[in-house]
Amino acid sequence: MLEQLKQEVFQANLDLVKHGLVIFTWGNVSGIDREKGLFVIKPSGVDYSVMKASDMVVVDTDGNVVEGKLKPSSDMPTHLVLYNEFPEIGGVVHTHSTYSTAWAQSGKALPIIGTTHADYFANDIPCTRDMTEEEVFGAYEKETGNVIVETFAQLKPMEIPGVLVKNHGPFSWGKDAHNAVHNAVVMEEISKMATFAFMNNPELTMNPHLVKKHYERKHGKNAYYGQ
Amino acid sequence: MLEQLKQEVFQANLDLVKHGLVIFTWGNVSGIDREKGLFVIKPSGVDYSVMKASDMVVVDTDGNVVEGKLKPSSDMPTHLVLYNEFPEIGGVVHTHSTYSTAWAQSGKALPIIGTTHADYFANDIPCTRDMTEEEVFGAYEKETGNVIVETFAQLKPMEIPGVLVKNHGPFSWGKDAHNAVHNAVVMEEISKMATFAFMNNPELTMNPHLVKKHYERKHGKNAYYGQ
Amino acid sequence: MLEQLKQEVFQANLDLVKHGLVIFTWGNVSGIDREKGLFVIKPSGVDYSVMKASDMVVVDTDGNVVEGKLKPSSDMPTHLVLYNEFPEIGGVVHTHSTYSTAWAQSGKALPIIGTTHADYFANDIPCTRDMTEEEVFGAYEKETGNVIVETFAQLKPMEIPGVLVKNHGPFSWGKDAHNAVHNAVVMEEISKMATFAFMNNPELTMNPHLVKKHYERKHGKNAYYGQ
Amino acid sequence: MLEQLKQEVFQANLDLVKHGLVIFTWGNVSGIDREKGLFVIKPSGVDYSVMKASDMVVVDTDGNVVEGKLKPSSDMPTHLVLYNEFPEIGGVVHTHSTYSTAWAQSGKALPIIGTTHADYFANDIPCTRDMTEEEVFGAYEKETGNVIVETFAQLKPMEIPGVLVKNHGPFSWGKDAHNAVHNAVVMEEISKMATFAFMNNPELTMNPHLVKKHYERKHGKNAYYGQ
Repeated sequence: MLEQLKQEVFQANLDLVKHGLVIFTWGNVSGIDREKGLFVIKPSGVDYSVMKASDMVVVDTDGNVVEGKLKPSSDMPTHLVLYNEFPEIGGVVHTHSTYSTAWAQSGKALPIIGTTHADYFANDIPCTRDMTEEEVFGAYEKETGNVIVETFAQLKPMEIPGVLVKNHGPFSWGKDAHNAVHNAVVMEEISKMATFAFMNNPELTMNPHLVKKHYERKHGKNAYYGQ
Repeated sequence: MLEQLKQEVFQANLDLVKHGLVIFTWGNVSGIDREKGLFVIKPSGVDYSVMKASDMVVVDTDGNVVEGKLKPSSDMPTHLVLYNEFPEIGGVVHTHSTYSTAWAQSGKALPIIGTTHADYFANDIPCTRDMTEEEVFGAYEKETGNVIVETFAQLKPMEIPGVLVKNHGPFSWGKDAHNAVHNAVVMEEISKMATFAFMNNPELTMNPHLVKKHYERKHGKNAYYGQ
Repeated sequence: MLEQLKQEVFQANLDLVKHGLVIFTWGNVSGIDREKGLFVIKPSGVDYSVMKASDMVVVDTDGNVVEGKLKPSSDMPTHLVLYNEFPEIGGVVHTHSTYSTAWAQSGKALPIIGTTHADYFANDIPCTRDMTEEEVFGAYEKETGNVIVETFAQLKPMEIPGVLVKNHGPFSWGKDAHNAVHNAVVMEEISKMATFAFMNNPELTMNPHLVKKHYERKHGKNAYYGQ
Repeated sequence: MLEQLKQEVFQANLDLVKHGLVIFTWGNVSGIDREKGLFVIKPSGVDYSVMKASDMVVVDTDGNVVEGKLKPSSDMPTHLVLYNEFPEIGGVVHTHSTYSTAWAQSGKALPIIGTTHADYFANDIPCTRDMTEEEVFGAYEKETGNVIVETFAQLKPMEIPGVLVKNHGPFSWGKDAHNAVHNAVVMEEISKMATFAFMNNPELTMNPHLVKKHYERKHGKNAYYGQ
């Protein structure tokens, strides 16, 4: 079932490696079929070099595995919460990519300080609050999803398609698995740029007009970037 | 028309990828035929892996597309202003390369602190001022060109063949598309060197004699570098 | 003798190069056969590009070479101490990988500030004290092992499978040579992340609940990561 | 003439590229035949991708080109001074490698803070003083050599086989061209390590016993590293 989606999600997982976002098994991508109410996700702890499209695991929106011989990624419940709470998204990515993880470890939002950021994310990429003892030792991965949703209470997920989970790392999403990976690559690159920009000038300022302009140039109703 | 120039500009665009200055579609190169008053530029948002020389777009110096099935780069009007205002240049490059973009985001000129810089750029690489709301929400890409030209009011473009556009990224130019890419690679490398040099010593000083010497060794009338 | 272990240790040494942890001959891996009381280690100063599995040197737990035409790694006595004092370990790695060595040079423990760290190391990775003149000009490599063991007096080696030797570099270990290399790669990556995380926010804080949770998710008796 | 030396010097120049120390034509290597009083050096401004062994230029110890159709590297007079003043050296390298150049731009000696450094360099790698106007606009490249020699007035060149030329970049040397390149690679790596070590801890300290021990372990009369 869902052979095409499995192929897409499999390829998107390999793309994490190709873009240098992942070593070992430190990442996972999923993609959802909204009509069928099923999503496809990487199996847990399987090496990218031996993984096959047929190893992808199919999960329903209650979190039940409906097909697959392997266990889904241990982060599956986080993906599940995001799919259920952010109905406009079609794919989810989690990595421990170097510079985005460094920002997540710093506990600070990734500030919007350039057009590279504004081309994809309409504002700062927020960082979640500390999770409580109850959350961490309860349904941890589900609660990780909940704290992301809480962080986006006043934000639109498709305008800011990513988040930093404090002391953990980045999650990103998009219209499908491929797009979610694209946003993960962007987050890593703008995380790196911001790290060095603040080294060059801790007092730097952002021109607020550029924020709105660049986001709308690519994503607004009068977008004119691309063909 | 302009088949050779298309080939040169196509190759120069691919060279951005080869030199690690560009991911996805985050860069564009153009080159001009001054006799014909036409320039050739990358199409907007086309992936480098599928782009062909014949996809290059031909534009006249009023900004009209005169050949090409695809839309030109959205930054085309910036290139246009630079060609019209800097008559000595033959090629233009824009990228979001990591360290030069970090400097552009920091809002500071890239200071001349070494001979690597002085071999190619006769002084600091300036950073443009904040663009106004009118400029950003008016003819934005044209105004980006205008603010670069304003920044060079007292500077010679061929002595400082590049600029940092505040909160955006680097533009560079040169005698042709290939040379403009070369200068973009140099800017990225000296941006990286300067970032770490100031980390090592925030109070560092430049020997002013070296500035003049190195630039003239390569570019002065008595240049003696190379064959 | 020990042909399979030689092959494993040979491969683990090459993996250091593959993972970018080593240039020239700046690293060594060993693995032990606990039943036979023999360990296999890289020869000293041999280039990775010409090294063969049959060049590996077999050493007993008194430090005597029992097979091999070449001299063992000059760090062999450090490996020996670790095997004798940490009976649960099966492999040892030493490198001069860039970011872990930078932390070792800084003389500070690598603090646990994220889940990437907690997934493999249950707490800070300690840094050894300054070695005395007597230690350095005595049996230096053996004393290096001793100062590591001293540092772990109150720590469990398999819960924190690595250490920073002050002004020198990282050592790591694991259940076998392959696993020790894995931990070396993790140390390098978390060293890099921590460097930039503290640049982004020198006052960052770690959520203590995540420390325990992530380590136990992968290594506790109720571990549920992987297949 | 000197066909074997030309081949060695040619290969050593290519090794700069292989080790990532050089982009474009930003580096040069030479090697000397002390018996014949002749040295072989890279031609000026020739691209590494088209350079042949037969392009190497032969120069005598008065600085006269005695064979070769191409002009020698513009830095040839610096190499010449070093060969004449440091009779124990057999090869010289100059690059603009990123992190060593950043230290040279910072105007500070590269401090000895780890064993990676001490394995090759017996103390800090010094940085030259500012060159005077007369030096820079006189016989600049020769004076660059002279200021290096002045810096080493109280130092032994083979114990510290490299230097940072202020606001310019690193020079290194060794017993032959290959060894000089090896030392250039080490300088770049320890420059990078030191940059990040001081970021991690600006107040770091070096254990002085390790300085002497590690250098002598590899280079002293009782050296015991390697086969």
